[in-house]
Amino acid sequence: MQTEYFEQIESNVRTYSRSFPTLFTKARGAELETSDGKRYIDFLAGAGTLNYGHNHPVLKEALIRYLSEDNIVHALDMWTEAKFDYYKAVEEKLLKPRGLDYKIQLPGPTGTNAVEAAIRLARKIKGRHNIVAFTNGFHGVTLGALATTGNAKFRDNAGVPLVGGTFMPYDGYLGEGIDTLDYLEKVLGDSSSGLDHPAAAIVEVVQGEGGTNVASAPWLRRLAEICQANDMLLIIDDIQAGCGRTGKFFSFEHAGIKPDIVTNSKSLSGYGLPFAQVLMRRELDQWGPGQYNGTFRGHSPAMITGAKALEHFWSDDSFELEVQRKGELVKQGFQELAARLRDKGIDARERGLGLMRGVDVGSGELADKITGAAFEKGLVIETSGHAGQVVKCLCPLVIEDQQIARALDILKDSVDQVVR
Amino acid sequence: MQTEYFEQIESNVRTYSRSFPTLFTKARGAELETSDGKRYIDFLAGAGTLNYGHNHPVLKEALIRYLSEDNIVHALDMWTEAKFDYYKAVEEKLLKPRGLDYKIQLPGPTGTNAVEAAIRLARKIKGRHNIVAFTNGFHGVTLGALATTGNAKFRDNAGVPLVGGTFMPYDGYLGEGIDTLDYLEKVLGDSSSGLDHPAAAIVEVVQGEGGTNVASAPWLRRLAEICQANDMLLIIDDIQAGCGRTGKFFSFEHAGIKPDIVTNSKSLSGYGLPFAQVLMRRELDQWGPGQYNGTFRGHSPAMITGAKALEHFWSDDSFELEVQRKGELVKQGFQELAARLRDKGIDARERGLGLMRGVDVGSGELADKITGAAFEKGLVIETSGHAGQVVKCLCPLVIEDQQIARALDILKDSVDQVVR
Amino acid sequence: MQTEYFEQIESNVRTYSRSFPTLFTKARGAELETSDGKRYIDFLAGAGTLNYGHNHPVLKEALIRYLSEDNIVHALDMWTEAKFDYYKAVEEKLLKPRGLDYKIQLPGPTGTNAVEAAIRLARKIKGRHNIVAFTNGFHGVTLGALATTGNAKFRDNAGVPLVGGTFMPYDGYLGEGIDTLDYLEKVLGDSSSGLDHPAAAIVEVVQGEGGTNVASAPWLRRLAEICQANDMLLIIDDIQAGCGRTGKFFSFEHAGIKPDIVTNSKSLSGYGLPFAQVLMRRELDQWGPGQYNGTFRGHSPAMITGAKALEHFWSDDSFELEVQRKGELVKQGFQELAARLRDKGIDARERGLGLMRGVDVGSGELADKITGAAFEKGLVIETSGHAGQVVKCLCPLVIEDQQIARALDILKDSVDQVVR
Amino acid sequence: MQTEYFEQIESNVRTYSRSFPTLFTKARGAELETSDGKRYIDFLAGAGTLNYGHNHPVLKEALIRYLSEDNIVHALDMWTEAKFDYYKAVEEKLLKPRGLDYKIQLPGPTGTNAVEAAIRLARKIKGRHNIVAFTNGFHGVTLGALATTGNAKFRDNAGVPLVGGTFMPYDGYLGEGIDTLDYLEKVLGDSSSGLDHPAAAIVEVVQGEGGTNVASAPWLRRLAEICQANDMLLIIDDIQAGCGRTGKFFSFEHAGIKPDIVTNSKSLSGYGLPFAQVLMRRELDQWGPGQYNGTFRGHSPAMITGAKALEHFWSDDSFELEVQRKGELVKQGFQELAARLRDKGIDARERGLGLMRGVDVGSGELADKITGAAFEKGLVIETSGHAGQVVKCLCPLVIEDQQIARALDILKDSVDQVVR
Repeated sequence: MQTEYFEQIESNVRTYSRSFPTLFTKARGAELETSDGKRYIDFLAGAGTLNYGHNHPVLKEALIRYLSEDNIVHALDMWTEAKFDYYKAVEEKLLKPRGLDYKIQLPGPTGTNAVEAAIRLARKIKGRHNIVAFTNGFHGVTLGALATTGNAKFRDNAGVPLVGGTFMPYDGYLGEGIDTLDYLEKVLGDSSSGLDHPAAAIVEVVQGEGGTNVASAPWLRRLAEICQANDMLLIIDDIQAGCGRTGKFFSFEHAGIKPDIVTNSKSLSGYGLPFAQVLMRRELDQWGPGQYNGTFRGHSPAMITGAKALEHFWSDDSFELEVQRKGELVKQGFQELAARLRDKGIDARERGLGLMRGVDVGSGELADKITGAAFEKGLVIETSGHAGQVVKCLCPLVIEDQQIARALDILKDSVDQVVR
Repeated sequence: MQTEYFEQIESNVRTYSRSFPTLFTKARGAELETSDGKRYIDFLAGAGTLNYGHNHPVLKEALIRYLSEDNIVHALDMWTEAKFDYYKAVEEKLLKPRGLDYKIQLPGPTGTNAVEAAIRLARKIKGRHNIVAFTNGFHGVTLGALATTGNAKFRDNAGVPLVGGTFMPYDGYLGEGIDTLDYLEKVLGDSSSGLDHPAAAIVEVVQGEGGTNVASAPWLRRLAEICQANDMLLIIDDIQAGCGRTGKFFSFEHAGIKPDIVTNSKSLSGYGLPFAQVLMRRELDQWGPGQYNGTFRGHSPAMITGAKALEHFWSDDSFELEVQRKGELVKQGFQELAARLRDKGIDARERGLGLMRGVDVGSGELADKITGAAFEKGLVIETSGHAGQVVKCLCPLVIEDQQIARALDILKDSVDQVVR
Repeated sequence: MQTEYFEQIESNVRTYSRSFPTLFTKARGAELETSDGKRYIDFLAGAGTLNYGHNHPVLKEALIRYLSEDNIVHALDMWTEAKFDYYKAVEEKLLKPRGLDYKIQLPGPTGTNAVEAAIRLARKIKGRHNIVAFTNGFHGVTLGALATTGNAKFRDNAGVPLVGGTFMPYDGYLGEGIDTLDYLEKVLGDSSSGLDHPAAAIVEVVQGEGGTNVASAPWLRRLAEICQANDMLLIIDDIQAGCGRTGKFFSFEHAGIKPDIVTNSKSLSGYGLPFAQVLMRRELDQWGPGQYNGTFRGHSPAMITGAKALEHFWSDDSFELEVQRKGELVKQGFQELAARLRDKGIDARERGLGLMRGVDVGSGELADKITGAAFEKGLVIETSGHAGQVVKCLCPLVIEDQQIARALDILKDSVDQVVR
Repeated sequence: MQTEYFEQIESNVRTYSRSFPTLFTKARGAELETSDGKRYIDFLAGAGTLNYGHNHPVLKEALIRYLSEDNIVHALDMWTEAKFDYYKAVEEKLLKPRGLDYKIQLPGPTGTNAVEAAIRLARKIKGRHNIVAFTNGFHGVTLGALATTGNAKFRDNAGVPLVGGTFMPYDGYLGEGIDTLDYLEKVLGDSSSGLDHPAAAIVEVVQGEGGTNVASAPWLRRLAEICQANDMLLIIDDIQAGCGRTGKFFSFEHAGIKPDIVTNSKSLSGYGLPFAQVLMRRELDQWGPGQYNGTFRGHSPAMITGAKALEHFWSDDSFELEVQRKGELVKQGFQELAARLRDKGIDARERGLGLMRGVDVGSGELADKITGAAFEKGLVIETSGHAGQVVKCLCPLVIEDQQIARALDILKDSVDQVVR
């Protein structure tokens, strides 16, 4: 049987195959299919990598055409037509309409690569090593990014102490009514606080791995002001929350801020292909030639699907509005789920933004039971949060209303099954 | 014009578009084509990513079929048929025939990700932080890997001191007749040498970025013995030299050693798709679930082409023999080129292994002139080495003899043009 | 003139000679005398090094006798009669009466050496690198200690990022009514907070350099509980606040806690001689022979005066009571000073413990003016605090009441002179 | 009995009391005396701290007079008569006669403090973090200095990876006929060698802890040239080899070089009192006020004896000549000792400079046996070297010829006793 084979040849480091121990084969839109024909609604979407769903036909058509015509697939960071078209799409569909004057860097095609580049650039510009990160933040696991990632599971296995990150409390971390930026401002203004003057702050507008915690617009605006007042760059890590996930292309649009540096990856290709970019204010492009590199920077197939996705979904605001509408559906469903749990004596709370939402059920054990039951009933959904206590929806943004309804039903039944 | 557009929107960090300032569109086998129809022989091959050439028809067919059928493209590290088939191919075509009992980890799909994972695993296993690296080695630029990369251009832009790497002289570094491992053994055996007892050594069998420097088989065998005698793991970074580049699938096969950990990437997908793996001796798989992660680990399209490439090229030894034969052609041509330069009063030397070869022309300025002239004549070829002093061949392994001949002619003409 | 000579030959790093630009020659008790016969009351006392005053006759007599008889002055860490007598005095006068079962380590004879030893021991015992330190803490400037010192003046000149310290808010740091340990407990209990599990916390009961901030007894007791609950050692840095400064020999006696590790220096010799010790719970003495060393560890003259000081001042509670009584005098005087300033529209506050007290006048500029005026009137007194905003009393504990009265008068006049 | 008491109350970290388990009481010149009246010749001299012998009468008289008159003992870094006189003595007796235009910094009173200051200043001046150190070098154990100390016993207990030091082979490290600076020059000249461009090199002219290894004059001159050519500062750590130990006040005088920065401690006070200084070329004094501090910087009693020692011993060259003459006696004796061992089949070699000499007997076990036997016969002498394989003479420079003769006899007898 295949399970045994996988267990024999694959490293123990594997994770998702533990939660979803089956063999997936096909996928379309918001659905996954296994080798024995079972179908699942996908509320995970590649951990936010498949915002436009699996194998979206418009993107697929463009990708297969590109491949069929022997267009160049791998070109390091040379200039190609694919790159030209991609840059044009970014400029026309993303930057210009939002009044953003950014330059584009294509680092290695993963989020952590983009974060390493962003952090390094900030340090270079400011001549300082420290980066403010926030509790429960996740920015990747290569060593540079890991210094800004809060999760002990990764940090404790770094093998060396992580240098150059200082953690501050995220919005809401200290409970209702406490503006956690007071603490940041206090230690920034105190030359004996032990806070080495930071080059930058890096933050997620919604913390994906951290448990769908949302930074409010006023908090983000104040953070931007603090950064500016203290000669620090503001880096928005939009790897999981970007590409429309929150109901806007960039999650920071809700707050009306213009970050100094933005990182994108995950859904940037629109098709699950590895891809990442760093956007930086024009005057911050202080890189010298080749000071950061990587073999797969500027992956052509990803640029093809990425450009096509921008054209298809982001030429007007209809997609945004759809995401916002569906976000409300999930929100409502999750609020009902939380209420249902509270009725059963469990202090559960819904939180999130757009289609990035979760129900905090208070314990990882319970969350695992719920998602385990849901998987048996045909829903792929994961947990997040520091204790894995949040049942989290990262469904494709193109999901259909009835799929949402079905998923919510499954979750309701799962809750009823595991909590009596 | 497009050049201006690129310069206006793309970060200054770009490199290859400076050496090859044209717009590439199509590519087949060992040839690249620009938007205005000019064709180039490709002696760069994506810096060693396209060992099987651009858009190999067998791989292309498998890839397009996979995509057409709505098979799953992105599945995090869940189990898929694509993964099953890939693991089977690795086992049947690579591991079993070579007597290697490795487990497989698929980290983020870039070389630096694989190196970070390998280093971290070694530290975890041995409970020590130090990793021995070698002069002129290149293992990636994320912060963990960068500690083992020698290049100052990257190191000086790290923003923090790099922790956990100690550099030792590579084979040949101190000139003829000096076994550089004497130095390593000396400092390992001296508890006051300042060398913190290493968890591992990481080394390339042929240094790609370092200037096609080759570690001899006896040197590698002695290194393996030193590692074993000193309770250190031996990590072979086979990212550039692997996948057949040297005339064997794994470059370390020439030396008859069995490393503890191996990293692969670049040509692993066979098609230029981002992909990477870490192979480790079974008993070294001491990872806990999820202790290293990444969104794009186990990229399905890359597993499809990767498996197909293993089946197509590595089911018997015919491909190996072809690579070795062509390697001799390039070797001969490069030796003649070196002799030609020496005739002109320039102390040039050929070196390399298989189809990973270079001519050290003594200065980066001269090497740039030669490759610049070659580009004008229709050859894409880059330089490497600490001063960029090595004109370096990384042509596709599937290159045709007449393409090699044509490239060698171009290089000869280029030398004659720039050195009179 | 001598000033010019000093400026010509002495490094710019000098500090106190900038605040007190005169040539001191003699000193007795709480008074300093210059070469031109001017006398000053000493409210600085060697930054807390001269708790028993300058040249105390009892200690002087013992020291001169020791030297006259050719007793051994320097013996590395060999056993000597001086050491035997010193250990006996520590045991009899300090440990036994307070129910403390500590072993003694004599590191290099400075506070920073003791802190380095304490931190290193904690890391060794717990196998973890992180140490919790507190805002405005000062623990020395050698690189290991500096990681726990908050002051940017030193941190920014370290030349490398400081590794292994995480700063938490000290008692009172966030204002009235906020128990800052809530924050420590929150991040300790959250595995994604970014706080690497600490080996220890290091804290001053009264922050000397930080501005005579006092940690309350309940806060310290809760800190001790948090450390125990989280498998962390509690290190009390009693270098400035110890040796009777606060009205008890150890400053932590007020809180009734028994730290795991204690560091002493400054007034430990009682005579201004370099000396330091680390006290550790018996079972924490996990040092191997020679794992921490230093040429001047166990300085014999300092052990002679140190033992004599313990016998003379600490054989009963009369000295403690005197310090507490005088502390009240200074407290009252400082409160009046603060009130006087408030009458002049300046928000000033008194704070401190025993004879370690200050008036926070809100700005470093004003504090400098006041201490500058005081110096002209015959009082040596310094400022502290993150902005130098605290006028700080560290007078000898043996000071006479009339000297206190005179000093308070000078301060009152100085305030009246500089604030109108 | 006292031994038990010490073992019960003193930390296991103690070392010298393990080699010399007796209770010392008095000391004069080159002799130590125990509580039971046994006398030892001192070939250890406080590990080089007592170059002028124990309790030298001239220094003693000055010290006791200073103390008797209530002169100021502790003054932080304020200006005092003692400091003025000390600076004058340094200028007149050391700097001017040797044509050295240095400024003086008095850091905390231990060698490691001076090294931390020197390294930090170099980093600040050059804006680079890396410091080249040499195999078997010892520069102290606080965390900054430890990064340049080779000994694993200390390094492995640092608790964090040591940052900012790179080790290069010391003179002679690679055997006869190999100029180890070739390696340094090679990696400095290679931008991909992995050597981060250093701010400075720090080196001992004779390695004390490293086993009395001597850097030759040509090697030192070449090192100075390499530093200058590569914009690196040269720091001579003269803590153990300075103050006349090698037959010149500064050990680097033999080579005719003028280092950028010099560190002194150990015998600097001349009386075993804690004291240290950093000398730096005038233009390198780029410290800002208070950027490096410490409570005991500028310890007055040490300045008194230090100034007196300079006047008494260094006003003409007679003392130097005496040291050189006695050095020859010890050299001859040690050579005979080595020959005696070689006759017994042990490959022993003498090496050293002035009165800093050792016999390398090949194993730490044998060296311990010899020094153990010698102790029983009335000689205090220690071992050094990475394996403790060097029997090492650090006798007081004022030792009498007959004491040398007696010590050499004891060593000869000890060798005969333990090697038959």
